[in-house]
Amino acid sequence: MDNQITEQLKLAKTACRSMQNINKETKEKALKLISKALLDHIDVILEENQKDIDMARDNGISEAMVDRLRLTQARIEAMARDILKVVALDDPIGSIVREIHRPNNLVIKQIRIPIGVIGIIYESRPNVTVDIASLCIKTNNVCVLKGGKEALHSNRILVKMINEAIAGILPEHCVTLLETTKRTDIDYVIKAHDYVDVVIPRGSAGLINYVVANATVPVIETGAGICHLYIDKLADLKMAVEIACNAKIQRPSVCNAIETILVHREIAPAFLPAMKEAFAGKVKFYVDETAAQYLSGERATAKNYATEYDDYICNVKVVDDVDEAIAHIYQYSTKHSEAIVSEDYELAEYFMNSLDSACVYHNASTRFTDGGEFGFGAEVGISTQKLHARGPLGLQEMTSTKYKIYGHGQIRK
Amino acid sequence: MDNQITEQLKLAKTACRSMQNINKETKEKALKLISKALLDHIDVILEENQKDIDMARDNGISEAMVDRLRLTQARIEAMARDILKVVALDDPIGSIVREIHRPNNLVIKQIRIPIGVIGIIYESRPNVTVDIASLCIKTNNVCVLKGGKEALHSNRILVKMINEAIAGILPEHCVTLLETTKRTDIDYVIKAHDYVDVVIPRGSAGLINYVVANATVPVIETGAGICHLYIDKLADLKMAVEIACNAKIQRPSVCNAIETILVHREIAPAFLPAMKEAFAGKVKFYVDETAAQYLSGERATAKNYATEYDDYICNVKVVDDVDEAIAHIYQYSTKHSEAIVSEDYELAEYFMNSLDSACVYHNASTRFTDGGEFGFGAEVGISTQKLHARGPLGLQEMTSTKYKIYGHGQIRK
Repeated sequence: MDNQITEQLKLAKTACRSMQNINKETKEKALKLISKALLDHIDVILEENQKDIDMARDNGISEAMVDRLRLTQARIEAMARDILKVVALDDPIGSIVREIHRPNNLVIKQIRIPIGVIGIIYESRPNVTVDIASLCIKTNNVCVLKGGKEALHSNRILVKMINEAIAGILPEHCVTLLETTKRTDIDYVIKAHDYVDVVIPRGSAGLINYVVANATVPVIETGAGICHLYIDKLADLKMAVEIACNAKIQRPSVCNAIETILVHREIAPAFLPAMKEAFAGKVKFYVDETAAQYLSGERATAKNYATEYDDYICNVKVVDDVDEAIAHIYQYSTKHSEAIVSEDYELAEYFMNSLDSACVYHNASTRFTDGGEFGFGAEVGISTQKLHARGPLGLQEMTSTKYKIYGHGQIRK
Repeated sequence: MDNQITEQLKLAKTACRSMQNINKETKEKALKLISKALLDHIDVILEENQKDIDMARDNGISEAMVDRLRLTQARIEAMARDILKVVALDDPIGSIVREIHRPNNLVIKQIRIPIGVIGIIYESRPNVTVDIASLCIKTNNVCVLKGGKEALHSNRILVKMINEAIAGILPEHCVTLLETTKRTDIDYVIKAHDYVDVVIPRGSAGLINYVVANATVPVIETGAGICHLYIDKLADLKMAVEIACNAKIQRPSVCNAIETILVHREIAPAFLPAMKEAFAGKVKFYVDETAAQYLSGERATAKNYATEYDDYICNVKVVDDVDEAIAHIYQYSTKHSEAIVSEDYELAEYFMNSLDSACVYHNASTRFTDGGEFGFGAEVGISTQKLHARGPLGLQEMTSTKYKIYGHGQIRK
């Protein structure tokens, strides 16, 4: 296994040099052909996807997980459309980020370039395969895809379609699928300092923590989302309830859904009963002493506050003021997304400035933390670290820079 | 030791929250006071520095290394001046990087913010302590400084001066010196995922490799510099010789000095004898077969090409064309800095575009890869990785971003 994976990584690294010279028109042509190939082969993709679904059912995997795995005609058509959205976005490669003119007449240009080989380690949803390949192609990067074994048939057919579509147009090995079976196999990827420029893990907390703890290749940490919603005393009540519903129950399984609602003491008597009615019995609560007056549920513990449920479960805590809310978020947030609902714009600004999460919202749902919703076309993941990129990873986040320095014989004194 | 270091890291992390709210005027006041404090205490700083120098001599350390350790009145005055240069630079914190208006009327602002706690692990030169503290203060970052034990007395007095100068103005613990003695002590720092946002190792290849291999905290890799100079057949001969001299012998111990000169076959008969004369016997050569016709030296091996000498030693290789030069650089470069000397501007552009090193020069010395020379005031180090930042790390590279999203009740459908 060692030899096979390492061999694939070497070939990927070799593809970088030709890939960085591919021009905009060629990239766009390749992406359009991939989009067309998906539409032309819906039947065979669905057939392969069915094998993964059958296997998942045989293994007793939950229907929620099976749903993440499932492709449909509509989903494949959406994937094909998303590729065309990526085609339509501005090409960041080659753009000038900064230009510096020095007193000694050196001209320094900072230019946007591809990162090189991007290793993505992900689980479940096969559309990720296509999203990432298209973002990487658009940015002249080579991608090495290590999908979950539960989606192997789907990923295999998708990468086959991609490679058939781009054959003769883009360099060989610029989109590579690694077919490994054990988690420790990813060690070959995350320690391949010579062949991989960055690793992006996307999936469960277990996977992400494993990569962070064991990688020697630079990592962009993604995804864990313990997100918070703070309802201020000056919140518009109707808006507060709508945003709470959207952020908690519109799609609880995703990372930008909230886990904890913090409520100002003065608005709790009005807000909590209204929220309870809107949640319509769908949500299990963990509550503090005050919230317990309005909601039934077990008493919330520190462990509850530190859990990403990804489910119809919600912690509710009543606070005395915005500072108590901020302190709670500092203690428990994974720094993904937090929101405040308030008509006090100054206070909202204070809340947003005080927190250092990737995305902070005023009077909007945390569910918007998403590459598509930000206008990035697609996303490679959502960074929750401070280095390189934060929030949804779009095209620009898949680039590095270099300095080109123009002289006419300057030497340093 | 565990408890003491971890305790210091916790206090540093706690300082982040107040540090991020410090305004521009306060930061500038603090930096000016530090500059003044250094000038006011030159005698005591020199006295402490002498202890390090005496100890180094007792330990039989080379005079070149002792020189890196030495502070003088002039060097302290230069440090104080550099702080004022940092004061004069634009403050990146709070600036808007991008503003996105979405069809649903969400307004998304990407704002520049501090990174948080920056751990710097470095060796020797005590001026690094002041450079980094001032860049971190200017960017509202908290810094944790782990200097070399050979510079302990110097670093201790400098950090004492800094903390006395900023007492009551900036939060306590925003500049922290870790006084550890064993290399494995740095494990507490590079694995402190909860307290440290980024680690920047600055020093020997051994130190950097240790940090990269063992850190779980995100790392910015710096410094290793196997840099190249390519003399094209259409080079201006006089300029080529001047740049070769500057890049090789003006200060060979630094990372932006070159290790290998690649020479086009057609210009070798003119260039190599002229270069030999200019080097005036100061440089030991490792040469290929063709270069051996003009220079005496042992035959260069792959090991020579892969060595950062940091000394008066130089590999010289004759190549058939620019592509052979590029291929050589791809194989051996640490992706720090490379230069081409040529009057063929199209060829130079091809050379610069083909390489993916942090800094690529046309008709100028690689010695300009430096925060000061780029106009950054000072530098935290020189990044040779693709992630987050490349080349000299100035103020902007010490920042992250967050998204502030403004709505009026938007929820996701």
